Amino acid sequence: MKSKILVAGLALALLGGAAAQAQVVHSGDAKAAIASSVFVPGGSDTLYVSGLTPSVADPAAPKGTKASYGDTKTQTLSVLGKLSDALKEHGMTLGDAVMMRVYLVGDPDMGGKMDFAGMMAAYTTMFGTADQPNKPARVTTQVASLVGPGQLVEIELQAAKVPAKKVMKKKK
Amino acid sequence: MKSKILVAGLALALLGGAAAQAQVVHSGDAKAAIASSVFVPGGSDTLYVSGLTPSVADPAAPKGTKASYGDTKTQTLSVLGKLSDALKEHGMTLGDAVMMRVYLVGDPDMGGKMDFAGMMAAYTTMFGTADQPNKPARVTTQVASLVGPGQLVEIELQAAKVPAKKVMKKKK
Amino acid sequence: MKSKILVAGLALALLGGAAAQAQVVHSGDAKAAIASSVFVPGGSDTLYVSGLTPSVADPAAPKGTKASYGDTKTQTLSVLGKLSDALKEHGMTLGDAVMMRVYLVGDPDMGGKMDFAGMMAAYTTMFGTADQPNKPARVTTQVASLVGPGQLVEIELQAAKVPAKKVMKKKK
Repeated sequence: MKSKILVAGLALALLGGAAAQAQVVHSGDAKAAIASSVFVPGGSDTLYVSGLTPSVADPAAPKGTKASYGDTKTQTLSVLGKLSDALKEHGMTLGDAVMMRVYLVGDPDMGGKMDFAGMMAAYTTMFGTADQPNKPARVTTQVASLVGPGQLVEIELQAAKVPAKKVMKKKK
Repeated sequence: MKSKILVAGLALALLGGAAAQAQVVHSGDAKAAIASSVFVPGGSDTLYVSGLTPSVADPAAPKGTKASYGDTKTQTLSVLGKLSDALKEHGMTLGDAVMMRVYLVGDPDMGGKMDFAGMMAAYTTMFGTADQPNKPARVTTQVASLVGPGQLVEIELQAAKVPAKKVMKKKK
Repeated sequence: MKSKILVAGLALALLGGAAAQAQVVHSGDAKAAIASSVFVPGGSDTLYVSGLTPSVADPAAPKGTKASYGDTKTQTLSVLGKLSDALKEHGMTLGDAVMMRVYLVGDPDMGGKMDFAGMMAAYTTMFGTADQPNKPARVTTQVASLVGPGQLVEIELQAAKVPAKKVMKKKK
């Protein structure tokens, strides 16, 4: 009997420990566009999404050019929409994003510098809004090039969610 | 007695919840070279492997040159072999890779553009094959430079695996 | 009764499996500056910290210049201090870092090459020391640009920790 009580005690300890922090926590300045950090409790499900690039915005424009994909804001909106779709397939939303890596290519119309403001103009329509207040941790860098010519934006992300537990009815 | 039944119920709920998705799931188009996303259930072990670079392929060539490390395909094969070794040390294989970040340097013999096709030629010999059908989520960028001169490829990855549970014999 | 014993057995199996590897393991050559890999057991808490950049070192220098932020070593020390602070907020230290991504910009005073040695000079004061022997897995690349002009260093990291379990007193 002793060992059974110990097991129950251990199980309760495990459950108690998990319950104490069983929530993804997005920390940071409320006014900041991103979280300073995101805490993911043990036991959470994690989704790794491949780097996604924009769809063609103007099929009439020459293939493989900025004109065909649009500016950085347009491209970012396209990528975020695709990321949202990828998350939905696993029962998640952009609000479950915990880490996002944004890779920008220099805009030929901006002296070869990345259009960070353009990326942000798109990003802020989907993160930290009334509908979706969560913000992921993030890093943004300007890389030398992406795989597809004309593409100025690639984003990969990780999302995490505490899995819904089955609700058990206890016997009387 | 009531509390003990509750504990058992909670434990069963936890186990039931975990059992429902206790599998790493690689999603995406079967024909694609990479997974669109990879789902890692809560409770999985994760391995973070440092960025690895290729070994010297031709010791007779001048040190720190592309000639000494080989082209992008050769370098990628070397790196993937080393990643495989790193995974083996922890009882994992390339099939457990869930996220891979590929950093390429422009090939001086290709006008300074990254040799994406060369990387893929190596990659596809090890991922999505009959022997190893799993494909990780992935992002590939061309960076300005890696640490070692002549190196055109660096890859870091994360692998995840549901830990094998000890099998308990139940009392009669 | 049978089912209750089974539940206890399963719970014990789960706990036993977790206990067997409930430790973050930093592997690799003891002399290396970084871990070759870091193993994070299932159930660990994970913290994703946004890419951090240095504080201004010399307020008298022109804004947005290297002179204002300092050289790569100075900037790295600033960033690592800020990362340490971010970890503290969640009860973690730099010793809990499991993966670190270092993005360097070419130093204009070094022919546009990244100052890897400068980064390392700062890094090695905080990792693999007597006080803090743990080393994270890491990848370092030279990117085309960071968001802030004059900034030569951005670092993002992930930290992981096995959560402290509540200690239960067992009934006699």
